[in-house]
Amino acid sequence: MTVTLDGKALKEKLLQQLKVKVDGFDKKPGLSVILVGDNPASILYVNNKKKTAEKLGIHSEIIHYDIDTPQEVIINKINELNNNDNVNAILVQLPLPPHIDKFKIIDAINPQKDVDGFTFYNSGKLFSGEEPFVYPCTPKGILLLLKEYNITLEGKHVVIVGRSNIAGKPLAMMMLNNNATVTLCHSYTKNLEQITKTADILISATGHDIIKKGMVKKGSVVIDVGIFKDENGKTRGDVDFSDVYPDISYISPVPGGVGPMTIISLMLNTVELYEKSLNNK
Amino acid sequence: MTVTLDGKALKEKLLQQLKVKVDGFDKKPGLSVILVGDNPASILYVNNKKKTAEKLGIHSEIIHYDIDTPQEVIINKINELNNNDNVNAILVQLPLPPHIDKFKIIDAINPQKDVDGFTFYNSGKLFSGEEPFVYPCTPKGILLLLKEYNITLEGKHVVIVGRSNIAGKPLAMMMLNNNATVTLCHSYTKNLEQITKTADILISATGHDIIKKGMVKKGSVVIDVGIFKDENGKTRGDVDFSDVYPDISYISPVPGGVGPMTIISLMLNTVELYEKSLNNK
Repeated sequence: MTVTLDGKALKEKLLQQLKVKVDGFDKKPGLSVILVGDNPASILYVNNKKKTAEKLGIHSEIIHYDIDTPQEVIINKINELNNNDNVNAILVQLPLPPHIDKFKIIDAINPQKDVDGFTFYNSGKLFSGEEPFVYPCTPKGILLLLKEYNITLEGKHVVIVGRSNIAGKPLAMMMLNNNATVTLCHSYTKNLEQITKTADILISATGHDIIKKGMVKKGSVVIDVGIFKDENGKTRGDVDFSDVYPDISYISPVPGGVGPMTIISLMLNTVELYEKSLNNK
Repeated sequence: MTVTLDGKALKEKLLQQLKVKVDGFDKKPGLSVILVGDNPASILYVNNKKKTAEKLGIHSEIIHYDIDTPQEVIINKINELNNNDNVNAILVQLPLPPHIDKFKIIDAINPQKDVDGFTFYNSGKLFSGEEPFVYPCTPKGILLLLKEYNITLEGKHVVIVGRSNIAGKPLAMMMLNNNATVTLCHSYTKNLEQITKTADILISATGHDIIKKGMVKKGSVVIDVGIFKDENGKTRGDVDFSDVYPDISYISPVPGGVGPMTIISLMLNTVELYEKSLNNK
């Protein structure tokens, strides 16, 4: 029997637990989200983040810039937030417009307030097998979801399709730190199906419908990180859910799988940074 | 016919080219090597590095500390070297004694003088797909060796055995940046031979004799990063050279393969940091 990994339910459970913790704080944790431009998906994402933060009693602000805002203006704002004691967590919503050097912006964030874990310092720590201030949200959410269902990683062959800095690469490092064997595939990979078929845990994060029947190992775990609208306007993921469902043990759905886990991980990270900031005083 | 990848010859060729360049500099580049304790292998390595640097006209010093030197003394020395304009490159010979926090020491190095590319900043840049000040020496040397023999990486399946911060992990990132599909194996990997047999390029970096006949794909490339003395005192690598030789296309020997390429990469990195320091003035 195949089990559907219920990210939505786990998110709600973790939200309840986290709310109790936040209610006990003397001061509200603060999350600042920087949004540049009017990408509709980005607007949806940042509003979701703000709404979830407010449910928890986390103070949240969206700092919204026009698409043609100069890079220096954003960096100056980040420096201001770095020095603001009411802000524990800073998030820059990606993607950024092409005139902006993404890494210049991200790396302006104080690593102690880097709630996505994307600064060179935090990603270098993750890469080196050391503990960053916080772990990137999407991989963190996936590991929490696997843990909830007692799916272990040690000695497993984890095949990741997609090598982004947001999902594929940090996920590879976190899987490696948990003693999984890791394969990273991408658009240049040849004979993809021959590799995905060897996966004990297959994780796809491409935003294209690429995982179909015959590409998965019998009894394996499939995690779908992709999310996009198909030609009929239906929200779907990388994996043909009904096609592979009969062959595998566990699968995360889209929507309701990795997406909610990413949001709750952002909230957990915000609270972790808040708690670490108290310890530093 | 199998080709043996001659790292020693390529090192000599690159040394000649680099010497011409260094001879043209107004001022000598400076490499400072910090050694803590009396590990015989480490002493051999740092002396080799110093000798090679001197051949090139690079000013090199070994700063040798007793094994029980406090961490702060070493960090203070690194700060001094960071501020010394005659020093372009700082290397801390690993391993360090157990009372020392390796990452505190490494991360004290100014990333612009981090000749091994091991600081969080530089490894975070590598991880993020951005150009670090320099690339770690062993992976850099392997890529130079493959390039010399026109062995391309795009679309190849590269299987790496060993996940150290010095070799396996940065190598994985550099292979990924060159559009190879990458699998990272290690001591927890199950059915290792089934994975290694799928490699177009197999790279072993464990320091144990683990790669034997039947573990390699016909016609593949095998790179041996391991180096140790066997029970008869003979220097050897991870790969049973004569055992796998008939089945493959290319193999790097031990000694004379990756080892010399690591040393010449250190020299190339020292000169690169020197040149970058001039551009920063």
